[in-house]
Amino acid sequence: MNDKQAVALEAANYVKNDMIVGLGTGSTANYFIEALAQRQQSEGLRVATVASSNISMIKAQSVGLTVLSLAQLSEIDLYVDGADEITPDNTLLKGRGYDLVMEKLLAKAARQFIVVADKSKLVSRIGEHFAIPIEVMPFAWQAAKRSIEAIGGTGDLRPNAAKDGLSITSHGSLVLDMRFDAGIDGHQLNALLNNIPGVVEHGIFAKLATTVLIADQGKVEARG
Amino acid sequence: MNDKQAVALEAANYVKNDMIVGLGTGSTANYFIEALAQRQQSEGLRVATVASSNISMIKAQSVGLTVLSLAQLSEIDLYVDGADEITPDNTLLKGRGYDLVMEKLLAKAARQFIVVADKSKLVSRIGEHFAIPIEVMPFAWQAAKRSIEAIGGTGDLRPNAAKDGLSITSHGSLVLDMRFDAGIDGHQLNALLNNIPGVVEHGIFAKLATTVLIADQGKVEARG
Repeated sequence: MNDKQAVALEAANYVKNDMIVGLGTGSTANYFIEALAQRQQSEGLRVATVASSNISMIKAQSVGLTVLSLAQLSEIDLYVDGADEITPDNTLLKGRGYDLVMEKLLAKAARQFIVVADKSKLVSRIGEHFAIPIEVMPFAWQAAKRSIEAIGGTGDLRPNAAKDGLSITSHGSLVLDMRFDAGIDGHQLNALLNNIPGVVEHGIFAKLATTVLIADQGKVEARG
Repeated sequence: MNDKQAVALEAANYVKNDMIVGLGTGSTANYFIEALAQRQQSEGLRVATVASSNISMIKAQSVGLTVLSLAQLSEIDLYVDGADEITPDNTLLKGRGYDLVMEKLLAKAARQFIVVADKSKLVSRIGEHFAIPIEVMPFAWQAAKRSIEAIGGTGDLRPNAAKDGLSITSHGSLVLDMRFDAGIDGHQLNALLNNIPGVVEHGIFAKLATTVLIADQGKVEARG
């Protein structure tokens, strides 16, 4: 069993009967979806899910989980997802994928948000390894970029995978990948970015994670 | 000349040759658009505009003004628009119309943002007369509403004018009209609402107005 499987299995143990569970997106989240389906089959666990992306919805359906629409819910019991960076105070960087808004919405709507990761995701500050993804409305991108530059950001629009166009999120937004000076704190940056009109959402998840599960060579450590 | 005309004429005097000017939406903004067209015709003023709504774009085109798209711009020289409420520190409540995002974007992108109003718009606190309009993504409205209720808001989705459906903004969002306790400060509420995922934009404009022009029985007073 690799670290991603180990941490996903551990997260699946947090699920209790009749919970509504938010499903993350990515390789670790996929192991979690499989572990949940396994518990449903072997123990008869009663569970309903909400997906953070079309791809995780398809995955969940393929293994026989019930998938609800978030539009009909105002809160969920548990959300399990990965992160690209995790600081000592459990601030996260997420969203190198394309469903930032749904991910942050689930994180906020969840009574418990469990982050699953391996040791390589631990950083001392947000932005240590990666640029910060910032979803912007297409007509607003130049004005929003200028506002982000005014608070110290540098970067540009994210190209698509084929490099022949721009990345488009599931909400039709463009993505600016922006780097900031090491001096700027994640919480401060979170508030500054939230205040810029035309910004739909960004990858800093502050004060949202309730538990972080870190796998290291098969062992899983929980951090509250 | 009524107060709306008087204040619109005064605002038009702030426009200089070769400026790019953001156009507001509403009756006072319409007088401003007419005054600008008048200066273009009579003095040969060279000016280009950016509209905050489809209706103001149509109005501007009908009087012969050049209208640019904001998508190609990162800043503008001047933005002139009305407001529904104005506090003593020039915090504004806007957006009882349907183009909140564009209005806030123009306000932020403008070197100067001149608010035109009559005395009836002066209030001691944001929310004194009106509920605060909050644009939310349709799939997120229940989760966002719950988060807004958790910070003390009460209210509901805005119906459409015919009362047979819901209001939809020009970005396809729904609108929650929410009231808050008198105890909560506009700046604090601005930061709290900015932090809620699924909220596209809201009607509090904090630290954006550079000048407020208030008309009172034909006299116009400027407040910096």
